[in-house]
Amino acid sequence: MEASKNEGDVAREIAGMLLKIGAIKINTENPFTWSSGWLSPIYCDNRLALSYPSIRNYIKKQLAEAVNFYFPIVEAIAGVATAGIPQGALVADLLGLPFLYIRSKAKGHGLENLVEGKVVREQRVVILEDLVSTGGSSLNAAEALKSNGMQVLGMVAIFSYGFEISNKNFRHAGVELHTLSNYQILIEEAINQNYVSGEKLALLQSWREAPDKWKP
Amino acid sequence: MEASKNEGDVAREIAGMLLKIGAIKINTENPFTWSSGWLSPIYCDNRLALSYPSIRNYIKKQLAEAVNFYFPIVEAIAGVATAGIPQGALVADLLGLPFLYIRSKAKGHGLENLVEGKVVREQRVVILEDLVSTGGSSLNAAEALKSNGMQVLGMVAIFSYGFEISNKNFRHAGVELHTLSNYQILIEEAINQNYVSGEKLALLQSWREAPDKWKP
Repeated sequence: MEASKNEGDVAREIAGMLLKIGAIKINTENPFTWSSGWLSPIYCDNRLALSYPSIRNYIKKQLAEAVNFYFPIVEAIAGVATAGIPQGALVADLLGLPFLYIRSKAKGHGLENLVEGKVVREQRVVILEDLVSTGGSSLNAAEALKSNGMQVLGMVAIFSYGFEISNKNFRHAGVELHTLSNYQILIEEAINQNYVSGEKLALLQSWREAPDKWKP
Repeated sequence: MEASKNEGDVAREIAGMLLKIGAIKINTENPFTWSSGWLSPIYCDNRLALSYPSIRNYIKKQLAEAVNFYFPIVEAIAGVATAGIPQGALVADLLGLPFLYIRSKAKGHGLENLVEGKVVREQRVVILEDLVSTGGSSLNAAEALKSNGMQVLGMVAIFSYGFEISNKNFRHAGVELHTLSNYQILIEEAINQNYVSGEKLALLQSWREAPDKWKP
Protein backbone atom coordinates (compact mmCIF):
# COMPACT_ATOMS: atom_id res chain seq x y z
CA MET A 1 0.00 0.00 0.00
CA GLU A 2 2.32 2.75 -1.24
CA ALA A 3 -0.42 5.37 -1.07
CA SER A 4 -1.11 4.88 2.63
CA LYS A 5 2.60 4.69 3.52
CA ASN A 6 3.06 8.06 1.85
CA GLU A 7 0.03 9.39 3.70
CA GLY A 8 1.57 8.31 6.99
CA ASP A 9 4.75 10.22 6.15
CA VAL A 10 2.77 13.34 5.28
CA ALA A 11 0.69 13.02 8.47
CA ARG A 12 3.85 12.86 10.61
CA GLU A 13 5.53 15.65 8.67
CA ILE A 14 2.58 18.01 9.14
CA ALA A 15 2.19 17.10 12.83
CA GLY A 16 5.90 17.84 13.26
CA MET A 17 5.60 21.20 11.49
CA LEU A 18 2.60 22.25 13.59
CA LEU A 19 4.44 21.32 16.78
CA LYS A 20 7.57 23.16 15.66
CA ILE A 21 5.79 26.50 15.10
CA GLY A 22 3.81 26.23 18.34
CA ALA A 23 0.47 25.70 16.65
CA ILE A 24 -0.21 22.80 19.02
CA LYS A 25 -0.62 23.69 22.64
CA ILE A 26 -0.82 20.86 25.16
CA ASN A 27 -1.70 21.49 28.78
CA THR A 28 -2.94 18.58 30.84
CA GLU A 29 -3.10 20.53 34.12
CA ASN A 30 -4.92 23.65 32.95
CA PRO A 31 -7.01 22.47 30.03
CA PHE A 32 -8.48 24.68 27.32
CA THR A 33 -12.20 25.32 27.00
CA TRP A 34 -13.55 24.80 23.50
CA SER A 35 -16.51 26.65 22.03
CA SER A 36 -18.59 23.53 22.63
CA GLY A 37 -17.84 23.81 26.37
CA TRP A 38 -15.62 20.71 26.31
CA LEU A 39 -12.46 20.76 28.37
CA SER A 40 -9.46 19.73 26.34
CA PRO A 41 -5.77 19.15 27.10
CA ILE A 42 -4.96 20.25 23.56
CA TYR A 43 -5.50 23.26 21.37
CA CYS A 44 -4.64 23.18 17.71
CA ASP A 45 -4.22 26.47 15.84
CA ASN A 46 -3.35 25.52 12.26
CA ARG A 47 -3.92 29.12 11.24
CA LEU A 48 -0.44 29.91 12.49
CA ALA A 49 0.85 27.87 9.53
CA LEU A 50 -0.51 30.59 7.21
CA SER A 51 2.24 32.87 8.51
CA TYR A 52 5.02 30.47 7.50
CA PRO A 53 5.18 30.51 3.68
CA SER A 54 7.15 27.26 3.32
CA ILE A 55 4.83 25.32 5.66
CA ARG A 56 1.77 26.93 4.05
CA ASN A 57 3.09 25.85 0.64
CA TYR A 58 3.72 22.31 1.80
CA ILE A 59 0.19 22.04 3.20
CA LYS A 60 -1.29 23.61 0.05
CA LYS A 61 0.45 21.07 -2.19
CA GLN A 62 -0.58 18.13 -0.01
CA LEU A 63 -4.19 19.33 0.09
CA ALA A 64 -4.23 19.74 -3.69
CA GLU A 65 -2.72 16.28 -4.18
CA ALA A 66 -5.35 14.74 -1.90
CA VAL A 67 -8.13 16.52 -3.83
CA ASN A 68 -6.79 15.24 -7.15
CA PHE A 69 -6.16 11.72 -5.84
CA TYR A 70 -9.50 11.12 -4.10
CA PHE A 71 -11.73 13.34 -6.22
CA PRO A 72 -10.23 13.53 -9.73
CA ILE A 73 -13.52 14.73 -11.25
CA VAL A 74 -13.55 17.86 -9.04
CA GLU A 75 -14.82 21.02 -10.75
CA ALA A 76 -14.73 23.54 -7.89
CA ILE A 77 -13.27 24.06 -4.41
CA ALA A 78 -15.25 25.42 -1.45
CA GLY A 79 -13.65 26.63 1.79
CA VAL A 80 -15.38 26.50 5.18
CA ALA A 81 -15.36 29.86 7.01
CA THR A 82 -13.23 31.08 8.50
CA ALA A 83 -10.13 28.93 8.74
CA GLY A 84 -10.86 26.84 5.64
CA ILE A 85 -10.99 29.89 3.38
CA PRO A 86 -7.30 30.80 3.00
CA GLN A 87 -6.01 27.29 2.27
CA GLY A 88 -9.13 26.60 0.18
CA ALA A 89 -8.39 29.63 -2.01
CA LEU A 90 -4.74 28.58 -2.37
CA VAL A 91 -5.75 25.07 -3.44
CA ALA A 92 -8.27 26.44 -5.96
CA ASP A 93 -5.50 28.70 -7.29
CA LEU A 94 -3.03 25.83 -7.61
CA LEU A 95 -5.58 23.64 -9.39
CA GLY A 96 -6.98 26.50 -11.51
CA LEU A 97 -10.51 25.81 -10.25
CA PRO A 98 -13.41 28.09 -9.25
CA PHE A 99 -13.54 28.92 -5.54
CA LEU A 100 -16.48 29.45 -3.21
CA TYR A 101 -16.77 29.72 0.54
CA ILE A 102 -19.42 28.89 3.08
CA ARG A 103 -20.23 31.19 6.00
CA SER A 104 -21.12 29.69 9.35
CA LYS A 105 -24.31 31.77 9.25
CA ALA A 106 -25.83 34.29 6.86
CA LYS A 107 -25.21 37.92 7.71
CA GLY A 108 -28.96 38.42 7.89
CA HIS A 109 -29.48 41.20 5.39
CA GLY A 110 -29.95 41.86 1.71
CA LEU A 111 -28.40 39.45 -0.72
CA GLU A 112 -26.10 37.69 1.75
CA ASN A 113 -25.96 33.97 1.36
CA LEU A 114 -24.46 31.08 3.25
CA VAL A 115 -22.55 30.24 0.10
CA GLU A 116 -20.42 33.02 -1.40
CA GLY A 117 -19.13 32.81 -4.96
CA LYS A 118 -20.82 31.50 -8.08
CA VAL A 119 -23.20 28.63 -7.34
CA VAL A 120 -23.46 26.32 -10.35
CA ARG A 121 -26.10 23.62 -9.98
CA GLU A 122 -24.76 20.05 -10.33
CA GLN A 123 -21.18 21.32 -10.20
CA ARG A 124 -18.89 18.80 -8.47
CA VAL A 125 -17.32 20.49 -5.48
CA VAL A 126 -14.73 19.39 -2.90
CA ILE A 127 -14.86 21.12 0.48
CA LEU A 128 -11.61 22.31 2.09
CA GLU A 129 -11.57 22.44 5.86
CA ASP A 130 -8.94 23.41 8.40
CA LEU A 131 -9.76 21.22 11.38
CA VAL A 132 -12.51 18.69 12.07
CA SER A 133 -13.65 18.13 15.66
CA THR A 134 -17.23 16.88 15.95
CA GLY A 135 -17.82 17.63 12.28
CA GLY A 136 -20.84 19.81 13.03
CA SER A 137 -19.80 23.03 11.30
CA SER A 138 -17.99 21.18 8.50
CA LEU A 139 -21.11 19.18 7.71
CA ASN A 140 -23.32 22.28 7.89
CA ALA A 141 -21.15 23.65 5.10
CA ALA A 142 -21.71 20.48 3.05
CA GLU A 143 -25.43 20.79 3.65
CA ALA A 144 -25.44 24.43 2.50
CA LEU A 145 -23.75 23.47 -0.78
CA LYS A 146 -26.15 20.58 -1.34
CA SER A 147 -29.21 22.70 -0.65
CA ASN A 148 -27.89 25.07 -3.34
CA GLY A 149 -27.94 22.18 -5.78
CA MET A 150 -24.21 21.52 -5.85
CA GLN A 151 -22.76 18.01 -5.91
CA VAL A 152 -20.49 17.51 -2.88
CA LEU A 153 -17.84 14.92 -3.76
CA GLY A 154 -16.30 15.02 -0.29
CA MET A 155 -14.05 16.94 2.05
CA VAL A 156 -10.31 17.32 2.60
CA ALA A 157 -9.09 18.71 5.92
CA ILE A 158 -5.68 19.48 7.35
CA PHE A 159 -6.39 17.82 10.68
CA SER A 160 -8.99 15.74 12.50
CA TYR A 161 -9.21 14.64 16.12
CA GLY A 162 -10.83 11.44 14.91
CA PHE A 163 -13.64 11.49 17.49
CA GLU A 164 -16.14 8.66 17.16
CA ILE A 165 -18.94 11.26 17.06
CA SER A 166 -17.27 12.87 14.04
CA ASN A 167 -16.88 9.56 12.18
CA LYS A 168 -20.54 8.85 12.90
CA ASN A 169 -21.65 12.32 11.74
CA PHE A 170 -19.74 12.04 8.47
CA ARG A 171 -21.06 8.52 7.82
CA HIS A 172 -24.59 9.68 8.57
CA ALA A 173 -24.26 12.66 6.21
CA GLY A 174 -22.70 10.49 3.51
CA VAL A 175 -19.69 12.79 3.19
CA GLU A 176 -16.29 11.24 2.42
CA LEU A 177 -13.57 12.83 4.56
CA HIS A 178 -9.80 12.70 4.05
CA THR A 179 -7.36 14.43 6.36
CA LEU A 180 -3.66 15.16 6.02
CA SER A 181 -2.92 14.54 9.69
CA ASN A 182 -4.73 13.41 12.82
CA TYR A 183 -4.70 13.37 16.59
CA GLN A 184 -3.21 9.90 17.05
CA ILE A 185 -0.18 10.73 14.91
CA LEU A 186 0.08 14.14 16.51
CA ILE A 187 0.39 12.83 20.07
CA GLU A 188 2.88 10.18 18.93
CA GLU A 189 4.99 12.90 17.29
CA ALA A 190 4.61 15.14 20.34
CA ILE A 191 6.02 12.36 22.52
CA ASN A 192 8.74 11.34 20.02
CA GLN A 193 9.94 14.91 19.81
CA ASN A 194 9.66 15.48 23.58
CA TYR A 195 7.00 18.16 23.38
CA VAL A 196 5.18 16.12 26.01
CA SER A 197 6.37 13.31 28.26
CA GLY A 198 5.51 9.72 27.37
CA GLU A 199 3.60 9.27 30.61
CA LYS A 200 0.92 11.66 29.31
CA LEU A 201 0.05 9.34 26.42
CA ALA A 202 -2.67 7.44 28.30
CA LEU A 203 -4.27 10.68 29.48
CA LEU A 204 -4.19 12.20 25.98
CA GLN A 205 -5.74 9.05 24.55
CA SER A 206 -8.45 8.89 27.20
CA TRP A 207 -9.49 12.44 26.35
CA ARG A 208 -10.03 11.54 22.71
CA GLU A 209 -12.28 8.64 23.65
CA ALA A 210 -14.69 10.72 25.72
CA PRO A 211 -13.96 14.42 25.12
CA ASP A 212 -17.42 15.47 26.29
CA LYS A 213 -16.90 13.96 29.78
CA TRP A 214 -13.16 14.41 30.26
CA LYS A 215 -11.73 16.25 33.26
CA PRO A 216 -8.07 16.78 34.06
CA MET B 1 1.64 60.51 -14.95
CA GLU B 2 2.09 57.01 -16.41
CA ALA B 3 1.27 55.35 -13.09
CA SER B 4 -2.14 56.97 -12.78
CA LYS B 5 -3.00 56.35 -16.45
CA ASN B 6 -2.28 52.68 -15.90
CA GLU B 7 -4.37 52.71 -12.72
CA GLY B 8 -7.28 54.15 -14.66
CA ASP B 9 -7.02 51.32 -17.18
CA VAL B 10 -6.96 48.71 -14.41
CA ALA B 11 -9.92 50.39 -12.67
CA ARG B 12 -11.99 50.25 -15.86
CA GLU B 13 -10.89 46.72 -16.67
CA ILE B 14 -11.92 45.43 -13.24
CA ALA B 15 -15.22 47.34 -13.30
CA GLY B 16 -15.91 45.77 -16.71
CA MET B 17 -15.10 42.27 -15.44
CA LEU B 18 -17.33 42.65 -12.38
CA LEU B 19 -20.20 43.86 -14.57
CA LYS B 20 -19.68 41.03 -17.05
CA ILE B 21 -19.98 38.27 -14.42
CA GLY B 22 -23.01 39.88 -12.78
CA ALA B 23 -21.17 40.84 -9.60
CA ILE B 24 -22.66 44.32 -9.83
CA LYS B 25 -26.38 44.55 -9.41
CA ILE B 26 -28.06 47.89 -10.09
CA ASN B 27 -31.71 48.47 -9.28
CA THR B 28 -32.90 52.04 -8.95
CA GLU B 29 -36.58 51.14 -8.46
CA ASN B 30 -36.24 48.42 -5.83
CA PRO B 31 -33.06 49.31 -3.97
CA PHE B 32 -31.02 46.93 -1.84
CA THR B 33 -30.82 47.26 1.93
CA TRP B 34 -27.29 47.20 3.29
CA SER B 35 -26.32 45.87 6.71
CA SER B 36 -26.02 49.50 7.88
CA GLY B 37 -29.70 49.99 7.03
CA TRP B 38 -28.85 52.25 4.08
CA LEU B 39 -30.93 51.91 0.93
CA SER B 40 -28.75 51.54 -2.13
CA PRO B 41 -29.40 51.30 -5.88
CA ILE B 42 -26.28 49.14 -6.16
CA TYR B 43 -24.95 45.92 -4.73
CA CYS B 44 -21.43 44.80 -5.40
CA ASP B 45 -20.51 41.15 -4.84
CA ASN B 46 -16.82 40.86 -5.74
CA ARG B 47 -16.79 37.39 -4.16
CA LEU B 48 -18.26 36.08 -7.40
CA ALA B 49 -14.88 36.84 -9.00
CA LEU B 50 -13.36 34.06 -6.85
CA SER B 51 -15.27 31.56 -8.97
CA TYR B 52 -13.71 32.80 -12.22
CA PRO B 53 -10.05 31.70 -12.17
CA SER B 54 -8.87 34.10 -14.90
CA ILE B 55 -10.54 37.13 -13.29
CA ARG B 56 -9.38 36.02 -9.84
CA ASN B 57 -5.83 35.80 -11.19
CA TYR B 58 -6.01 39.21 -12.80
CA ILE B 59 -7.22 40.77 -9.54
CA LYS B 60 -4.58 38.87 -7.53
CA LYS B 61 -1.78 40.19 -9.75
CA GLN B 62 -3.08 43.77 -9.64
CA LEU B 63 -3.43 43.64 -5.85
CA ALA B 64 0.10 42.27 -5.50
CA GLU B 65 1.48 44.96 -7.83
CA ALA B 66 -0.27 47.67 -5.81
CA VAL B 67 1.16 46.26 -2.57
CA ASN B 68 4.69 46.23 -4.01
CA PHE B 69 4.34 49.66 -5.60
CA TYR B 70 2.89 51.55 -2.64
CA PHE B 71 4.38 49.54 0.21
CA PRO B 72 7.67 48.05 -1.00
CA ILE B 73 8.88 47.43 2.57
CA VAL B 74 5.92 45.10 3.29
CA GLU B 75 6.74 42.06 5.44
CA ALA B 76 3.31 40.44 5.85
CA ILE B 77 -0.19 40.48 4.38
CA ALA B 78 -3.38 40.52 6.48
CA GLY B 79 -6.86 39.82 5.07
CA VAL B 80 -10.05 41.28 6.53
CA ALA B 81 -12.71 38.63 7.29
CA THR B 82 -14.49 37.35 5.46
CA ALA B 83 -14.21 38.57 1.90
CA GLY B 84 -10.65 39.90 2.22
CA ILE B 85 -9.28 36.51 3.28
CA PRO B 86 -9.24 34.58 -0.01
CA GLN B 87 -7.62 37.31 -2.13
CA GLY B 88 -5.36 38.23 0.79
CA ALA B 89 -4.08 34.65 1.00
CA LEU B 90 -3.51 34.56 -2.77
CA VAL B 91 -1.53 37.81 -2.66
CA ALA B 92 0.58 36.54 0.27
CA ASP B 93 1.19 33.36 -1.73
CA LEU B 94 2.24 35.28 -4.85
CA LEU B 95 4.58 37.53 -2.86
CA GLY B 96 5.87 34.69 -0.64
CA LEU B 97 4.92 36.59 2.51
CA PRO B 98 3.40 35.52 5.84
CA PHE B 99 -0.40 35.75 5.98
CA LEU B 100 -2.74 36.65 8.83
CA TYR B 101 -6.39 37.47 8.97
CA ILE B 102 -8.59 39.61 11.17
CA ARG B 103 -12.00 38.45 12.38
CA SER B 104 -14.82 40.95 12.63
CA LYS B 105 -15.25 39.84 16.25
CA ALA B 106 -13.62 37.29 18.51
CA LYS B 107 -15.43 33.97 18.78
CA GLY B 108 -15.66 34.54 22.51
CA HIS B 109 -13.97 31.45 23.89
CA GLY B 110 -10.59 30.06 24.77
CA LEU B 111 -7.63 31.22 22.76
CA GLU B 112 -9.57 32.88 19.96
CA ASN B 113 -8.20 36.18 18.86
CA LEU B 114 -9.26 38.97 16.58
CA VAL B 115 -6.02 38.41 14.70
CA GLU B 116 -5.36 34.88 13.45
CA GLY B 117 -1.91 33.80 12.36
CA LYS B 118 1.48 34.65 13.81
CA VAL B 119 1.58 38.13 15.32
CA VAL B 120 5.10 39.56 15.14
CA ARG B 121 5.51 42.86 16.94
CA GLU B 122 6.77 45.73 14.74
CA GLN B 123 6.25 43.61 11.62
CA ARG B 124 5.21 45.80 8.64
CA VAL B 125 1.86 44.59 7.42
CA VAL B 126 -0.39 45.60 4.50
CA ILE B 127 -4.11 44.92 4.88
CA LEU B 128 -6.02 43.38 1.98
CA GLU B 129 -9.70 44.23 1.76
CA ASP B 130 -12.44 43.30 -0.66
CA LEU B 131 -14.71 46.32 -0.62
CA VAL B 132 -14.66 49.58 1.34
CA SER B 133 -17.94 51.34 2.08
CA THR B 134 -17.83 53.54 5.20
CA GLY B 135 -14.49 52.05 6.16
CA GLY B 136 -15.73 51.00 9.61
CA SER B 137 -14.96 47.29 9.54
CA SER B 138 -11.79 47.79 7.47
CA LEU B 139 -10.43 50.27 9.99
CA ASN B 140 -11.40 48.04 12.93
CA ALA B 141 -9.12 45.46 11.35
CA ALA B 142 -6.29 48.00 11.15
CA GLU B 143 -6.89 48.87 14.80
CA ALA B 144 -6.75 45.20 15.83
CA LEU B 145 -3.37 44.78 14.13
CA LYS B 146 -2.01 47.97 15.71
CA SER B 147 -3.19 46.98 19.17
CA ASN B 148 -1.26 43.74 18.67
CA GLY B 149 1.87 45.79 18.09
CA MET B 150 2.05 45.39 14.33
CA GLN B 151 3.02 48.24 12.03
CA VAL B 152 0.20 48.89 9.55
CA LEU B 153 1.69 50.34 6.36
CA GLY B 154 -1.70 50.74 4.71
CA MET B 155 -4.52 48.97 2.92
CA VAL B 156 -5.20 47.78 -0.61
CA ALA B 157 -8.81 47.03 -1.61
CA ILE B 158 -10.44 45.79 -4.77
CA PHE B 159 -13.20 48.39 -4.70
CA SER B 160 -14.35 51.50 -2.86
CA TYR B 161 -17.54 53.50 -3.13
CA GLY B 162 -15.49 56.60 -2.34
CA PHE B 163 -17.93 57.97 0.24
CA GLU B 164 -16.83 61.17 1.93
CA ILE B 165 -17.37 59.48 5.33
CA SER B 166 -14.92 56.76 4.31
CA ASN B 167 -12.25 59.24 3.17
CA LYS B 168 -12.70 61.05 6.46
CA ASN B 169 -12.49 57.85 8.50
CA PHE B 170 -9.28 56.73 6.77
CA ARG B 171 -7.70 60.19 7.16
CA HIS B 172 -8.69 60.25 10.82
CA ALA B 173 -7.21 56.78 11.41
CA GLY B 174 -4.06 57.68 9.49
CA VAL B 175 -4.39 54.64 7.22
CA GLU B 176 -3.30 54.97 3.57
CA LEU B 177 -5.84 53.32 1.26
CA HIS B 178 -5.38 52.31 -2.38
CA THR B 179 -8.11 50.68 -4.41
CA LEU B 180 -8.03 48.92 -7.78
CA SER B 181 -11.42 50.26 -8.86
CA ASN B 182 -14.11 52.60 -7.58
CA TYR B 183 -17.74 53.63 -7.83
CA GLN B 184 -17.29 56.57 -10.20
CA ILE B 185 -15.50 54.44 -12.78
CA LEU B 186 -17.95 51.61 -12.23
CA ILE B 187 -21.03 53.69 -13.06
CA GLU B 188 -19.26 55.19 -16.08
CA GLU B 189 -18.46 51.67 -17.34
CA ALA B 190 -21.99 50.48 -16.56
CA ILE B 191 -23.38 53.27 -18.75
CA ASN B 192 -20.75 52.85 -21.50
CA GLN B 193 -21.53 49.16 -21.72
CA ASN B 194 -25.31 49.68 -21.53
CA TYR B 195 -25.77 47.84 -18.23
CA VAL B 196 -27.72 50.91 -17.15
CA SER B 197 -29.18 53.79 -19.16
CA GLY B 198 -27.36 57.12 -19.22
CA GLU B 199 -30.36 58.90 -17.66
CA LYS B 200 -29.67 57.03 -14.39
CA LEU B 201 -26.26 58.67 -14.00
CA ALA B 202 -27.50 61.65 -11.98
CA LEU B 203 -29.46 59.38 -9.65
CA LEU B 204 -26.49 57.04 -9.14
CA GLN B 205 -24.24 60.01 -8.40
CA SER B 206 -26.73 61.57 -5.97
CA TRP B 207 -26.82 58.32 -4.00
CA ARG B 208 -23.05 58.35 -3.52
CA GLU B 209 -23.16 61.90 -2.16
CA ALA B 210 -25.68 61.13 0.62
CA PRO B 211 -26.08 57.35 0.89
CA ASP B 212 -27.43 57.60 4.45
CA LYS B 213 -30.38 59.77 3.38
CA TRP B 214 -31.04 58.47 -0.14
CA LYS B 215 -34.44 57.15 -1.21
CA PRO B 216 -35.43 55.91 -4.65
